[in-house]
Amino acid sequence: MYNMDRLFEAVAERGHVCVGLDTTADYIPEKERRRASTSAEAVLAYNRAIIDSTIDIAACYKVQIAYYEEMGLAGLDAYAKTLKYLRDRGALAIADIKRGDIADTASRYARAHFEGDFQADFVTLSPYLGMDSIEPWLNWAKEKGKGAFVLMRTSNKGRQDFQCLELDGGKKLYEAVGDKLSELAAGNLGKHGYGAFGVVVGADPKSEDERREAAAIRAQRANLFFLIPGYGAQGGAASDAALLLREGNGGVVNASRSILKAWQNEADGGDGAEASNTLAAQAARQAAVEMRDAIQKAARN
Amino acid sequence: MYNMDRLFEAVAERGHVCVGLDTTADYIPEKERRRASTSAEAVLAYNRAIIDSTIDIAACYKVQIAYYEEMGLAGLDAYAKTLKYLRDRGALAIADIKRGDIADTASRYARAHFEGDFQADFVTLSPYLGMDSIEPWLNWAKEKGKGAFVLMRTSNKGRQDFQCLELDGGKKLYEAVGDKLSELAAGNLGKHGYGAFGVVVGADPKSEDERREAAAIRAQRANLFFLIPGYGAQGGAASDAALLLREGNGGVVNASRSILKAWQNEADGGDGAEASNTLAAQAARQAAVEMRDAIQKAARN
Repeated sequence: MYNMDRLFEAVAERGHVCVGLDTTADYIPEKERRRASTSAEAVLAYNRAIIDSTIDIAACYKVQIAYYEEMGLAGLDAYAKTLKYLRDRGALAIADIKRGDIADTASRYARAHFEGDFQADFVTLSPYLGMDSIEPWLNWAKEKGKGAFVLMRTSNKGRQDFQCLELDGGKKLYEAVGDKLSELAAGNLGKHGYGAFGVVVGADPKSEDERREAAAIRAQRANLFFLIPGYGAQGGAASDAALLLREGNGGVVNASRSILKAWQNEADGGDGAEASNTLAAQAARQAAVEMRDAIQKAARN
Repeated sequence: MYNMDRLFEAVAERGHVCVGLDTTADYIPEKERRRASTSAEAVLAYNRAIIDSTIDIAACYKVQIAYYEEMGLAGLDAYAKTLKYLRDRGALAIADIKRGDIADTASRYARAHFEGDFQADFVTLSPYLGMDSIEPWLNWAKEKGKGAFVLMRTSNKGRQDFQCLELDGGKKLYEAVGDKLSELAAGNLGKHGYGAFGVVVGADPKSEDERREAAAIRAQRANLFFLIPGYGAQGGAASDAALLLREGNGGVVNASRSILKAWQNEADGGDGAEASNTLAAQAARQAAVEMRDAIQKAARN
């Protein structure tokens, strides 16, 4: 069974929320940071608290490796332990690593992130090098059900620089990427009709034109599951995310800061002197529930 | 002083060879592998031997992180120690990490790879997300002289899928990437006329058309220093690499397998039973010297 099928079923059961564990020491209540002997240890304890409090609400978790690499080897140890904790709890994990390298090197990356210390259920990939940087990862889809999300049209301003350039013939670059991925997906469809590899499509249309564009992207990519960043702190709203869903499924919506830092808006005024991981985890759960409900409501409209 | 200036001077002094430390246990003589207690330890010892034997010949070293990630945390420890050994020996190190992520995440990656456990002199970056995934790294150029090479036109077959697509107006995507990078470079030229950030341009033209294309790329990008992969085991020849140089400088040419595995062609028939790191390091030196001389000769023609 492909992990993409498991993800589809998780969305059907628990909604569209992907909790982004882009955790940094600043997000953690002060007394918890002081209790931990290193930042990496504080981050791991915080992640565990957030995972415990959202496990029945989240479709999956996304771990952005940059936040851990920043802390060096100790940070990557916390990254490995966060992934292990997710496995032990039966949660689906997306390793947000945006790798993109050629054939043999791609296979080494795949072994690194689908096996061993850093094993995850999904990875994110960058397509600039071409399909020979994507295809090697498919061996792990066939053999172990692993999945990937390839950057297609992201939510940052810089997407205009290259992704949105118009090609000879009228298509945009991101559509050419989408075409190749749709083609690839046709060879490994799961039982819910999505390919083993999906795409990253950002959720923050800034105009009516961009809203139409989002709806068109969803309509054209019936066999691609979407990882949708840009929600919450990054500006996207539930109605924007809903544009990228298909019959109420077909995508997970990532939020990181709006969940991880929700406790800073709490009753104690957010100064954090009395805040604990328990309080932060409760606030995270509340933020995730509200997000889940808002997206489900928008998806029904 | 920008690291790109240091690299220019290293090329002027020692030639164009960038030794690629894409080291894997298979490349290492059997008795050395057996002597080490882990693969990661064997790789580190091998890297040190190769670095010692090529330090006066190599312009710089490139460490492909995938080969280390594949070994998990122990591998990344060997990666960190390889970079430290290069620093201690005063060598310039390129971290081949091909990162590409948005603003805040890009800064975290920059801290990870320009500071702390994994600090290197240069990184490689992937441009798909746009210039807001490149620009954050420039702070480290301004403050610490750090450099980067952004993927422009790579040497793998898959470059045809996206990089070589023709845009509306007639340019190819890789030229649009080159234009943005040339523009960026104009704001941070070093004393030798190259921007703090250069580009990756592959060296393996397969036809006269591609040879003309290579010459055109070099002519159009006078302010961009080139990191040139694809030499040796990947098929590129000295005359191909020379097409991408400018007045005998302006680029380093990477070779990994043809240097790391040179000992396997040696007199003992390559079965490796008697081979040692000392023998492997001598063979690596010889291969690097021949490569350096071949490129210098081709560059003069």
